[in-house]
Amino acid sequence: MENTTIASASEESELTKQDMPTALDLPMVDPLPPETQKYFDICVEKLGMVPNVLRAYAFDIDKLNAFTSMYNDLMLADSGLSKLEREMIAVVVSSINKCFYCLVAHGAAVRQLSGDPRLGEMLVMNYRVAKLDARQRAMLDFAAKMTTASTTIEEPDRQLLRDAGFSDRDIWDIANVTGFFNMTNRVASATAMVPNPEYHAQFR
Amino acid sequence: MENTTIASASEESELTKQDMPTALDLPMVDPLPPETQKYFDICVEKLGMVPNVLRAYAFDIDKLNAFTSMYNDLMLADSGLSKLEREMIAVVVSSINKCFYCLVAHGAAVRQLSGDPRLGEMLVMNYRVAKLDARQRAMLDFAAKMTTASTTIEEPDRQLLRDAGFSDRDIWDIANVTGFFNMTNRVASATAMVPNPEYHAQFR
Amino acid sequence: MENTTIASASEESELTKQDMPTALDLPMVDPLPPETQKYFDICVEKLGMVPNVLRAYAFDIDKLNAFTSMYNDLMLADSGLSKLEREMIAVVVSSINKCFYCLVAHGAAVRQLSGDPRLGEMLVMNYRVAKLDARQRAMLDFAAKMTTASTTIEEPDRQLLRDAGFSDRDIWDIANVTGFFNMTNRVASATAMVPNPEYHAQFR
Amino acid sequence: MENTTIASASEESELTKQDMPTALDLPMVDPLPPETQKYFDICVEKLGMVPNVLRAYAFDIDKLNAFTSMYNDLMLADSGLSKLEREMIAVVVSSINKCFYCLVAHGAAVRQLSGDPRLGEMLVMNYRVAKLDARQRAMLDFAAKMTTASTTIEEPDRQLLRDAGFSDRDIWDIANVTGFFNMTNRVASATAMVPNPEYHAQFR
Amino acid sequence: MENTTIASASEESELTKQDMPTALDLPMVDPLPPETQKYFDICVEKLGMVPNVLRAYAFDIDKLNAFTSMYNDLMLADSGLSKLEREMIAVVVSSINKCFYCLVAHGAAVRQLSGDPRLGEMLVMNYRVAKLDARQRAMLDFAAKMTTASTTIEEPDRQLLRDAGFSDRDIWDIANVTGFFNMTNRVASATAMVPNPEYHAQFR
Amino acid sequence: MENTTIASASEESELTKQDMPTALDLPMVDPLPPETQKYFDICVEKLGMVPNVLRAYAFDIDKLNAFTSMYNDLMLADSGLSKLEREMIAVVVSSINKCFYCLVAHGAAVRQLSGDPRLGEMLVMNYRVAKLDARQRAMLDFAAKMTTASTTIEEPDRQLLRDAGFSDRDIWDIANVTGFFNMTNRVASATAMVPNPEYHAQFR
Repeated sequence: MENTTIASASEESELTKQDMPTALDLPMVDPLPPETQKYFDICVEKLGMVPNVLRAYAFDIDKLNAFTSMYNDLMLADSGLSKLEREMIAVVVSSINKCFYCLVAHGAAVRQLSGDPRLGEMLVMNYRVAKLDARQRAMLDFAAKMTTASTTIEEPDRQLLRDAGFSDRDIWDIANVTGFFNMTNRVASATAMVPNPEYHAQFR
Repeated sequence: MENTTIASASEESELTKQDMPTALDLPMVDPLPPETQKYFDICVEKLGMVPNVLRAYAFDIDKLNAFTSMYNDLMLADSGLSKLEREMIAVVVSSINKCFYCLVAHGAAVRQLSGDPRLGEMLVMNYRVAKLDARQRAMLDFAAKMTTASTTIEEPDRQLLRDAGFSDRDIWDIANVTGFFNMTNRVASATAMVPNPEYHAQFR
Repeated sequence: MENTTIASASEESELTKQDMPTALDLPMVDPLPPETQKYFDICVEKLGMVPNVLRAYAFDIDKLNAFTSMYNDLMLADSGLSKLEREMIAVVVSSINKCFYCLVAHGAAVRQLSGDPRLGEMLVMNYRVAKLDARQRAMLDFAAKMTTASTTIEEPDRQLLRDAGFSDRDIWDIANVTGFFNMTNRVASATAMVPNPEYHAQFR
Repeated sequence: MENTTIASASEESELTKQDMPTALDLPMVDPLPPETQKYFDICVEKLGMVPNVLRAYAFDIDKLNAFTSMYNDLMLADSGLSKLEREMIAVVVSSINKCFYCLVAHGAAVRQLSGDPRLGEMLVMNYRVAKLDARQRAMLDFAAKMTTASTTIEEPDRQLLRDAGFSDRDIWDIANVTGFFNMTNRVASATAMVPNPEYHAQFR
Repeated sequence: MENTTIASASEESELTKQDMPTALDLPMVDPLPPETQKYFDICVEKLGMVPNVLRAYAFDIDKLNAFTSMYNDLMLADSGLSKLEREMIAVVVSSINKCFYCLVAHGAAVRQLSGDPRLGEMLVMNYRVAKLDARQRAMLDFAAKMTTASTTIEEPDRQLLRDAGFSDRDIWDIANVTGFFNMTNRVASATAMVPNPEYHAQFR
Repeated sequence: MENTTIASASEESELTKQDMPTALDLPMVDPLPPETQKYFDICVEKLGMVPNVLRAYAFDIDKLNAFTSMYNDLMLADSGLSKLEREMIAVVVSSINKCFYCLVAHGAAVRQLSGDPRLGEMLVMNYRVAKLDARQRAMLDFAAKMTTASTTIEEPDRQLLRDAGFSDRDIWDIANVTGFFNMTNRVASATAMVPNPEYHAQFR
């Protein structure tokens, strides 16, 4: 029921004042603008929580909006990559960068979208042990190389993706999802962002 | 004169079809929506060019807008960091990631904003040789550590920034500018993004 | 009931012939010697499975016995380190070495022994985010340094452990548990050892 | 003469109390159990010394026995690898880990078993300069990769060993000898284990 | 006019006493021996300055002479490598070692000898983005590998150079120029050697 | 007797034609100029051999002379560093770079000059295990940092040397000896330079 949801979102919002989602003392705007409050309410309705990354950015609504626009375009908009594939990239990049926040949140997403808890664990721990098809393996190898040695990427690396069936537009998306998590992993680690506890037991 | 400017922007737009700003075959939307065309015209007027990174994203206007919103918020909005300081972070991160596009474009920005061409070169080559005040050195050391070893950042690293005079809000901005260039460096390297040739001789 | 347990252990033993615990074609001795069969039956009784690492070594009973003697002495014998602390070292070392087998098996052990599933996840992903007391943090920092840079360990590193309350005997145990997982991580990764699927959902 | 040997073994045992084989204050059990004393006497008879690694473990006879059982099984039991080949792995792994104890002790063993002092030096310094046959080179390349990047080992790496003539059982032995020295290198470095001085001039 | 040149060289020499070219307090021999003074005068005449590296060595004329003999032989004597190619190696090595002095001085040399300021920037920032012919790319790849991983160079690496058209004598020169800048980069960084300011704006 | 010496030097010179000191086909000038022949004769008289590094450079007498001038100035001329200390730096740098030629030749020199074969081995294997006085340890730590991370050296690193008793002139010498072996290690590894076999058994 919507009323209940709104109520719990408000409690969530109260909680925030005491319980910062990062190590920085940056309280959320209070009250949130109606648009933002509505967005957070939808999160609670759909996910059962407002992800802490959103609460972390909510001290400045322009920053929050810039973040969510980019996030939603990358992870949810039309793409030659499935949503699961984009989450797989997120987890592999976060595994290399050892980002606790992103591994917890996106590890859960891989478990959910794939229905395969073991796959989520493999990508968190060492994606090379997962038995993937050639296309997904090429995608993750490219993401891993971009994360650890982007300066060495050259035309043959892009060609490997084309040979695995990806279009130039797909390569753009792989590059941008990989880039995005190299940003957000670092922001989360640098600010000690804490993942919502709900993720841990989900989809096991 | 504005008329002339608009004309050269149109020529620029023509050029794009043949001369891709990256190694990917992703032509700009043609014609550009009026809002975008206007933004590009302003670029030509102010910078003498449309930066290739914008042309690269312009195959999809939603992606372009998401990118420019985040870029403009990070680099141009109010902050405890000066615009020069944000560009200094951009160059130091790009130097570690050896990103040709970003070193050329943001190296020019440091030369321009500082009026010190030697500073621009130092940040491109090895920021440790620059004689910086303690505040800026702490800021760049944090950015460098976030870039190479974000997983090891803990409270004492943040405290070093506070001791150097930064607020928690400033730390958020340092972390997010650093994160952003860790994204865009990787996207530029992964797609072989080419910097506009105009940058090379500027502000030497 | 013991009869039932023995029966399922036999089925387990049957399964092994088809379903190798590693990528190497090294079938278990068949039939197992009575001592070994008894040990495996106890595993099934207590753990609900025979851990695949034991099945992997069981192609040669001398090797299996040498492995289990060392393992049991290190992980279960009297020590100034609690069993949980020894499992914490196991997970931190395995996280650095990205060993899928050991992270799955010993991650479950940390969740079980600590009763804190989140702690298990933190150690798998990045132990630096866990809020540990000074003693356990010093122990894990030493284990991490031994894993990545053992050649640089000198007297001040050992003194840090003594200052955190560890005896020389405890230091021996920290060093040997850390060493052991640097062995077994590599053996598991080199042979593509597969963890028993039961671990994934345990103690979440 | 056996009597003389026993006498010098006793002197050795006396020495131990003052002259610890590591930086940890962990005196040997005194008197040693008869089985252990006999084993140490055989060492003196055959090697002219009790290797310090054994004296280091002898503060706890269960730990000593677990160590020697595994060591003797790996290095001396039947295997498709010759004893020299197992010592070659020991030295190459120890060279990467820069373990003084193991390089001194096992470097001497390579000089002795090969009759080629220059080979011992090459493996200590840089095994790639040694002119080895394809089989031994493949074996050492696998050991080196397991030591520096075990997480990246996949089926093609194992296939290279099979192509060089190794059986799956041989691969197990290569993996376990390599793993073992990754353990013992770290234990020796972490405890500042000192090699017996006799090794230095042997078999030059 | 020569008289003018000599005069400015003397002023330069005066300057040196106050303005050390490194962080070490090692004044030039005063007066310089006639041979050295003549050499420095020629530098001023041809380059408009005495490069600070020469002023740094001039506290000891034997050391200066040993350095200039080796430098002149490597960079100016007959070779299968053009002078530009030798400067390209200098910049690529210095880029890996992030040596401010050498990047500034030899970056200018590449811009001058190639007439292509963009090439100079590319080699300073990331040589992989430059569109080079196969010969020059092979040369720079070898120099880069020698700089970061000389211990792994083996016959196939040399053969790649031969296949790209280099003679064994050319390989010697590539190896020695690469080696030389691995020396001088480290000396410059270790002593905080400052490049002459004139270089920055040259040949842009 | 000198006559005998000259004779054996000639035989040595004959040998060279067949037995290249590197993997490159670069025969020595034949006959050697009288000055060079005399220098090589002195080597045979004093060292019992012509070091292969000299034979390698002797395809071009100018290059040989440039090399020997710099070598002799660095290693044999007056300095605040003893000859042993300069050889200690040579071995520590060569150990990091895993240069077989230099470890063999300069390891022997450390054994000879120190009269302590064990010290030679320690520096080859891991200098941190050697019990050195604070001065020599600071010297070797600086050399190691210059070798692995010269770009991070700043004033506090130099101050550590001054605090350990070194003058600025001494620091110059430490930096230049360290730089020199970073050059010659790479040249030797890149050309597969083979050390004279005589070194192996010397001064054990």
